Formats: sequence, structure tokens, C-alpha cells
Amino acid sequence: MVSVSTDAAMRRAIELAARGLGSTSPNPVVGCVLLDVNGELVGEGFHAYAGGPHAEMVALAQAGERARGGTAVVTLEPCDHTGRTGPCTGALIQAGVARVVIGVPDPNLVASGGAATLRAAGVEVEIGVRAAEVEAGNIAWLTAVRRGRPYVIWKFASTIDGRSAAADGTSMWITSEAARMDVHALRGTVDAVLVGIGTVLADDPRLTARNLRDGSLAIRQPLRVVVDSEGRTPADARVRDGAARTWVVTTAEVGATKEDRVDLDALMTGLYQRGVRAALLEGGPTLAGAFLAAGLVDKVVGYVAPKLLGAGPAALADAGPRTISEVIDLEFVDITQVGPDLRITALPRKREG
Amino acid sequence: MVSVSTDAAMRRAIELAARGLGSTSPNPVVGCVLLDVNGELVGEGFHAYAGGPHAEMVALAQAGERARGGTAVVTLEPCDHTGRTGPCTGALIQAGVARVVIGVPDPNLVASGGAATLRAAGVEVEIGVRAAEVEAGNIAWLTAVRRGRPYVIWKFASTIDGRSAAADGTSMWITSEAARMDVHALRGTVDAVLVGIGTVLADDPRLTARNLRDGSLAIRQPLRVVVDSEGRTPADARVRDGAARTWVVTTAEVGATKEDRVDLDALMTGLYQRGVRAALLEGGPTLAGAFLAAGLVDKVVGYVAPKLLGAGPAALADAGPRTISEVIDLEFVDITQVGPDLRITALPRKREG
Repeated sequence: MVSVSTDAAMRRAIELAARGLGSTSPNPVVGCVLLDVNGELVGEGFHAYAGGPHAEMVALAQAGERARGGTAVVTLEPCDHTGRTGPCTGALIQAGVARVVIGVPDPNLVASGGAATLRAAGVEVEIGVRAAEVEAGNIAWLTAVRRGRPYVIWKFASTIDGRSAAADGTSMWITSEAARMDVHALRGTVDAVLVGIGTVLADDPRLTARNLRDGSLAIRQPLRVVVDSEGRTPADARVRDGAARTWVVTTAEVGATKEDRVDLDALMTGLYQRGVRAALLEGGPTLAGAFLAAGLVDKVVGYVAPKLLGAGPAALADAGPRTISEVIDLEFVDITQVGPDLRITALPRKREG
Repeated sequence: MVSVSTDAAMRRAIELAARGLGSTSPNPVVGCVLLDVNGELVGEGFHAYAGGPHAEMVALAQAGERARGGTAVVTLEPCDHTGRTGPCTGALIQAGVARVVIGVPDPNLVASGGAATLRAAGVEVEIGVRAAEVEAGNIAWLTAVRRGRPYVIWKFASTIDGRSAAADGTSMWITSEAARMDVHALRGTVDAVLVGIGTVLADDPRLTARNLRDGSLAIRQPLRVVVDSEGRTPADARVRDGAARTWVVTTAEVGATKEDRVDLDALMTGLYQRGVRAALLEGGPTLAGAFLAAGLVDKVVGYVAPKLLGAGPAALADAGPRTISEVIDLEFVDITQVGPDLRITALPRKREG
């Protein structure tokens, strides 16, 4: 019998939560570890898919009677409402859990209130254990729920000198197969993939998450979104095939800016309403520029090939800055070599105010 | 008394050689370790500056009589000619050294032949110990001597999206002070710094190697070279100040291409004749493109700031490729974070044939 600290249990719960990444939307990833009255691990679980059992329920089912008097360690505040499943708070109280240790509170107004309900029932509640790690592990969902719009990752591929195609428009391939496989894995972690109509007309991409070696599709496919103000996506475009759902977004449907472009705020709201919490923006340069100018990019992932072109379209255009003082500031958070290429991950710097 | 293997002695000689980096041109960096007849280390030296004693001479002077019957371990084949100093071969023979272990042969036709002379005098000679490391430690000089032109490092600074200035031309500063200090350290390792007239007219740089904090100049300054076809460098340009020597290269002086640009081959020859073995090409984009198109870039060092502009001049223009199959292939050899920025080092891939 090994006693487990609540800190160690939270580390384990964070690991468990991560197993759900990419398949729980519109729900968050959640991990839960149950310790009995002696601190022995008696149950664990994670939320695997929307409509499936919550992490707490899985762990409680494992623990059975041994949960009584014990501690539930859970990454996110337990839900307090009846959605597709019953409230976790009720189940924890009924199982006789004496203490609940929570990573971060639930920012979702509908589901929150769990901590208060537990306390009212006499359960000891502690909030904020390994909060930064829990936050990082659930950043897309937490950011999306707080802002009421999807968490947007802008992905680009370019040469060292920032070109995403040669002068004649050819671009297959700037990056290596290893980098392109990495992109497909990234697509597997998001709920939607976004491109502009220019990219559809130029490259006719499939935008599916698939195994590049044998072409087989991932079980879960992100929603394919084409930002297409005037509805020019061809009827036989690959994004219209049956491999995944597709939303061709026109100004007629979601509304236009005064420049007759698709209103990005309306697009974001529409995506959120469709259950999209994490979205991968794959270009082209003008669409990426519009997202950046609107402050709608939460993370930048760039694949930089060890190549030089000296001419050809840049990965980014019209992002807003006209002079150096208006530059968009980021910070590098990860640099990883992927095959011969470099994957650069950067986050926008927090702005003052 | 500790016996040292010739392999360990060569490692030490490579370390010693590196101390001369940046101050030996037009000579190579060289390190030498002397072992006595029992393998004990009895002398070591490196070549510190042109006109100063060669590494072997310094080590021999330290060892004195203990060199007799011993082994000299030296990174580069000992010189066989009388230049500003006497031939090292003669000194080694006279000191009674029984064996000479050499990293790489001397590609310099004037100074080579050392191994043959030693062997003719009955000295045992071994060539090729840790040759790859020795080569790497002396790559600029070896490449320059083999090709009869300076080893060229192209340095650029840009945002993640490849811009080296904003749309209005402002660029101070794209990169951090830490990155700019790193550039000044890099200038301290080369014999010349090259820019195009566009950079002089736009930024009026000093092009000196200096301490950015207090402005003090490094003792040794690289030659400042302005590639200025029509001789437009202003009389009061900072590159014309007294802080370092300057060469304003016009077509009138070195000859022109059919596009009326400075003939780069003639420029390279002129630099080599001036003793320049390593040169730092600092831009602008058109000059860098011309160097790359001519195959004259041996190493690329890019400082990439975690910033986005979406508009403004690229770090590189007119490098040759018109379509993706003509892309210039490199490989990353080092990625280092410098302050908030990234320093990317890449080498051209060897071309077939």
C-alpha cells in the first residue's frame, strides 16, 4: 500500500487529462485521481469524448466503496449541472468523498458552481494545485470558453527568408515529409482547420488529418472551414469531398466588414456555436494577416525549412504594422527540429491594459 | 609525470588553436603540443597574430632540450618556408623531435611540403589525427586558401515572417540588444565586414566591432567594405570615420558585370589579396542575393526575432530561384536562443558534381 500525495496525484491527473486532447470538444480535457482515506490510489479516469462519462465518474466507478472518506484530485472544477451526463458534484457527494482538490476553476458559467455545491455539502475543497500546469494542459479550451471564441493556432511553412512559395507560385514542397506529418498530427488535436479561398484555388488542399504514408484518414476529422467571401470554392474542390465536414463561409451567410471581407468576429462566434474550441489557421498570408490584425491569433507554429528563395510570396501579409514601433511582439516558447526543418512555437506577448 | 596520448594532445592543440581565431589572418589558427620521449607534456603554443611566432616555435621554446626524441602534435602541417618567421620544419628537426603528428595538411602551396621535408630528415610523420575537428576549427582559413577567395558568412536579422524592416523602412531595432552584441562578437572573428551602398544610405552604420554598452572599440577591427558600384558613399558616412579601415568598392576600380554591378569575383580576389580570409556579409537583401546567386556564401547566420510585421522588405532578394525546384538548399547546424531571439546557423548543402 503506497500513500500518494495530492501533488503527485494532480501530476497524474494532468497526464490522464492529456489523453483526451483532440477528442473532447466542445468539452474540456479533464483527469481525475481518487485516493482512499489512507491516501492510496483507488481510481483514476479522464474525459475521452463529449457525451462519454466525465473523468470523476470513471474514477468513482473504479474506486467503488473505497472512495468513502477519500480525496478526489481533479484538474478542473467538477461540473454542477446535468448535461449529457449527471452532475459530478452529486456523484462525489453521494460516494462520500471527504475532500476535493481542484487544479483550476471552471470558467464555463453553465457548468461552474461545483466547488460551492461541494462545500455546502460538507466536502473540503482546495483550488489551485498545480494550476499553471493544468492551465497549460487545457489552454485551448480554457481560452476559448473565457473569450467565447475558438483558440486559434496560426500555422505557416516557409523558407529561412520567409517565403511560402517560389516566384512562380510553386510550393510543393517547401518543408519535409517529417514536417508535413507533424502538421497532420497537429490537425488531429483541433476541431477545425481554416484556410482562405486563395489557398483552395491555388493548392486545392484536402485539409484532412491523415497518415501521409498510406493516405488513411484519422478517425476524428476537424471541420474544414474555407473563408470565401464571394463563394468561389469550386464544386469539385477537394475540401468538398466526403472525408470530413466542410463549412464554406461567405459574407452572405455571416456578414461582411466594410471592406466586403468575411466578418471574423462573426466567423469566430459561428465556430464557437458549432462546438469549435481549438482551430488551426493554415493560411494564406492575407487571411493570417487579417486574424493577426484583429488580435485573434493565440499561438503561432511555424515550420521553417533550411532553404532560401529570395523571391515569392511571404507567409504573412497585411497584418497591420506600418512602422517598427507597431511590430507584433511574440515570445518563443518551443524550438524543435522536425526532420531537416525547424518548428518554431511562439505566443503573443500579453498586452498592457 | 602523466603520459598524454597523441589523441588527447591533439584535442588540446585544437583548443589552443581556437585562441587565435579572429587575429591571425592572413595566417591560419594553429595549435601545437609537445610531448617528451615519455609522453609527458613539455610545451604548448598557438599562433596568435600574423608576424608573431608560429605555434610550434612557442611550444619548442617552452620545451627546450626536453623536445629531443619527443613528439610534436600540431593541428596544421608545419610550414616549410621562410616568411616573416623561419620554417617550422627546420626548427623541429633541429630540436631533435622524433615524431610529428598532424591534423590536416597545409593547402597553401607556398607553405606546404612540411611533411615531406620532415620525413626526408628522418622524422616520423602521421597525418589526419582528429582531422574533422581540426578542419572545423579552421574552416574559414582552409576554405579561403583552397578557393583563393574569402570564406563568406551571410548574416541577416529578421522577424519570424522574414522582414528586415517595416513597410516604412524603419528597422531599429528588429532584434534585441543581446543579438546585436552577438553580431559585434561575430565581427570580431572576421577580417572584413561587407555591406551594399543601399544599407549605407539607409542606416549609415559604423560597421565596427565594439562594446554596445560603452561604445568602446575592439582592439582589432575588420576592414569595412562598401559595395558601391557608382561611388555614392557620402563623404560624411560613418563608415568613412577613423575607427577602422574602409574600402569603398566601385565598378571603376574592380570592374563591372554586364548589369553594371560590381564584379563579385574581382571583389573576392581583391579581398583575398588584402589578406581577408573570413568576411561577414551584412546586407542588404540585393547584395546578399547576388552573393547567393554566385555561390559565394559559405555559411548563413540569421537572427530571428519573435516578431511579425506582415509587410516591409525581406532579408533576401533576387537570389536566383524562380521556381521551387531551384530552391537553395541548406542544412541547420546550430540553433541557439540569444536573449529573446533565435540565432540560426545553416550551411549550404554540398552540390552534386
